[in-house]
Amino acid sequence: MDFNTTRSFAEKLDARDPLASFRTRFIITDPGLVYLDGNSLGRLTCASLKCIQHAVEQEWGHDLIRGWNENWWEAPVRIGEKIARLVGAAAGQVIACDTVSVNLFKLASATLAMRPARTHIVTDTLNFPSDLYVLQGLVRSLGEHHTVLRIGSPDGDITPDMDALAAAIDDSTALVTLSHVTFKSGYLYDMAAVTELAHRHGALVIWDLSHSAGAVPVALDACNADFAIGCTYKYLNGGPGAPAFIYIRKDLQEQAVSPICGWWGQNAPFAFGLDYTPAPGVARFLTGSQPILSLLAMEAALDPLLEAGLDRLRVKSLLLSEYLIYLSDTLLGPLGCRLGSPRIPERRGSHISLRHPEGYRINRALIEEMNVLPDFREPDNLRLGLTPLYTSFSEVWEGVDRIRQVVADKRFEKYPFQRLTVT
Amino acid sequence: MDFNTTRSFAEKLDARDPLASFRTRFIITDPGLVYLDGNSLGRLTCASLKCIQHAVEQEWGHDLIRGWNENWWEAPVRIGEKIARLVGAAAGQVIACDTVSVNLFKLASATLAMRPARTHIVTDTLNFPSDLYVLQGLVRSLGEHHTVLRIGSPDGDITPDMDALAAAIDDSTALVTLSHVTFKSGYLYDMAAVTELAHRHGALVIWDLSHSAGAVPVALDACNADFAIGCTYKYLNGGPGAPAFIYIRKDLQEQAVSPICGWWGQNAPFAFGLDYTPAPGVARFLTGSQPILSLLAMEAALDPLLEAGLDRLRVKSLLLSEYLIYLSDTLLGPLGCRLGSPRIPERRGSHISLRHPEGYRINRALIEEMNVLPDFREPDNLRLGLTPLYTSFSEVWEGVDRIRQVVADKRFEKYPFQRLTVT
Repeated sequence: MDFNTTRSFAEKLDARDPLASFRTRFIITDPGLVYLDGNSLGRLTCASLKCIQHAVEQEWGHDLIRGWNENWWEAPVRIGEKIARLVGAAAGQVIACDTVSVNLFKLASATLAMRPARTHIVTDTLNFPSDLYVLQGLVRSLGEHHTVLRIGSPDGDITPDMDALAAAIDDSTALVTLSHVTFKSGYLYDMAAVTELAHRHGALVIWDLSHSAGAVPVALDACNADFAIGCTYKYLNGGPGAPAFIYIRKDLQEQAVSPICGWWGQNAPFAFGLDYTPAPGVARFLTGSQPILSLLAMEAALDPLLEAGLDRLRVKSLLLSEYLIYLSDTLLGPLGCRLGSPRIPERRGSHISLRHPEGYRINRALIEEMNVLPDFREPDNLRLGLTPLYTSFSEVWEGVDRIRQVVADKRFEKYPFQRLTVT
Repeated sequence: MDFNTTRSFAEKLDARDPLASFRTRFIITDPGLVYLDGNSLGRLTCASLKCIQHAVEQEWGHDLIRGWNENWWEAPVRIGEKIARLVGAAAGQVIACDTVSVNLFKLASATLAMRPARTHIVTDTLNFPSDLYVLQGLVRSLGEHHTVLRIGSPDGDITPDMDALAAAIDDSTALVTLSHVTFKSGYLYDMAAVTELAHRHGALVIWDLSHSAGAVPVALDACNADFAIGCTYKYLNGGPGAPAFIYIRKDLQEQAVSPICGWWGQNAPFAFGLDYTPAPGVARFLTGSQPILSLLAMEAALDPLLEAGLDRLRVKSLLLSEYLIYLSDTLLGPLGCRLGSPRIPERRGSHISLRHPEGYRINRALIEEMNVLPDFREPDNLRLGLTPLYTSFSEVWEGVDRIRQVVADKRFEKYPFQRLTVT
């Protein structure tokens, strides 16, 4: 499409947007706010607001303990089935529970036990540091019999080194685990190709979908993925710290053993037997009682995504990001900003990183005085999340224009420079 | 006190109850309901209702990602400090996070690493089955180098065999872990004595406070306890599945290493460094993003407990349970009910178990047609939770009277008999 830099062009794009009406499904209290951080915390849906009121007043306040039978006990499995439809999984393979870190721990532990003769875990420096910490902690807790191989330079690659990845995976590899969409640059891994590469060497794969669920079409079953985890508070709009999810491919469920065996993953939880026997299927990876209020708020938020459909969301997401890249190249490039995300649409998630040496202070100025909410990632990434359910083209135009003002007028200079120490 | 069985006597006890006004701090939609399951799910406080509305509408809906800086990021530590005051812990030793199962896994793993030459975990059959499952799963995930020794008969003891416990703890014991108040009979362990016994043999202790926090005075520091965990949705009224807590004694915090190393437990989480270095203090046992809505609802619920104070709550709790035991002995004993809880007040938590061969069907009848909510635990325990913040003496009288009607009139006979299989 031939873009131009006028505001009226943005309004034209909005007028043609078939998903524009989904913005009305969200609570928007400040129409002047340019919210470009839905990749960190999705906006509040009207459905979640209504649901949480019901969950608190009726279910907790009135139904009391009866709530467990009526709506709560089955929630992790019921919500898992809804998430499954957003990540290309058939029924019976997804549950909603715990945090991403706890879920990665459970799955990574299970995979190492499934490949007892193998000692290597392969990952990369584009992965969430939090995921790397979990792997390190797991290896230490198991007595340092495994090694975490980390592909890539320590700081700031946009795209992974696929040759290095291929070279790292061999018959000592128990597990390959990567972020499907990487958190800094938004690079989108080819799930089918990497999964196939790992399988060729007999390794298992865990995909972290935190930056892709709800943002890009994910085809877990079609890619023959083994395991996946993901958070729900980003593009799934589940609310702050909403519970995470787990995917385990059907044919692996009986072999996979969770190290954390709680009563929700027990075969007959209400028999209160003294010895653990795992529940059938993916439910065996449940642990203890889940935070129901946070869980139900998240459940309600999934409906607009299911209605819109990931294919339509992807079309809009790519148009939003192409448009943002065009505006950034044209208006911000001359001011020292460069693109920190892949130019190839097929390899891009739904956020865009703009790199500038003053990224940290630009981000502060945008928040403090321009009513723009992006976020910042070390060393120089201004991260702009495009959430096709509610981000409008006018909002993108407005966001770029306000960044332009901050950079051109050096409005960031009044803020203290702060580089967080990378240890 | 000389009790009698008249309803007017219950009303007299209510009139003299210095904590009676705390009932107004709760949302009570059905004044006819006899709610005796606050040991499973505490009632909704007015404060939590108000807090959750603010958290959803203002903090999530309006503040969006800014909520993390304003109120959310510090919540696990801030709320931990409030819980600390309810369990006899000085500042800097408690955090609120994850589930009881996940927290037990983290702590039990840490203790085994702190006693590498020892191979035994000592627990008992009165412990939560869920805790036993976690221990079993941990031992398996570490390669079966440890043994879980389980004191007691498999089914239905009221009090533990202290001689067997003492005999089980020796210099091969790495860890002793018990429920401070046991979930069936409500037996209250002598924390100081058992901790001292374990320490004499060089073992570490994890106390599960799920049935004691908010119900009985707990003195973790004074008892020199090493570690504790507990849930917040029972007597702490935190809401369905609200996050759990962890206590680690100050001088053990630098030695204890969590197997699940997430970014919330990292020393400099926003530096996004690729290698994990633990945060100072107990915060290193945090994992990933916590369910904020559930966490904040729980925080608000703690205030009435702090105001009432555990000593006053304990006085009322014991008066409630003495009264219930008196009514039960007098009115239900002749109908075949016998006490399933300790008669000695010092060894009793805040719930009472009544045992009857038809316990399961009596429980069903109470729920279905008598507007009483107790709960049932295999094989024959009708469990009656007494929550001194909002349970009135009239409610106890009414509860016993309705049980009497169900048993005397055999109203339970229309319900199907169902004994859950203990595997």
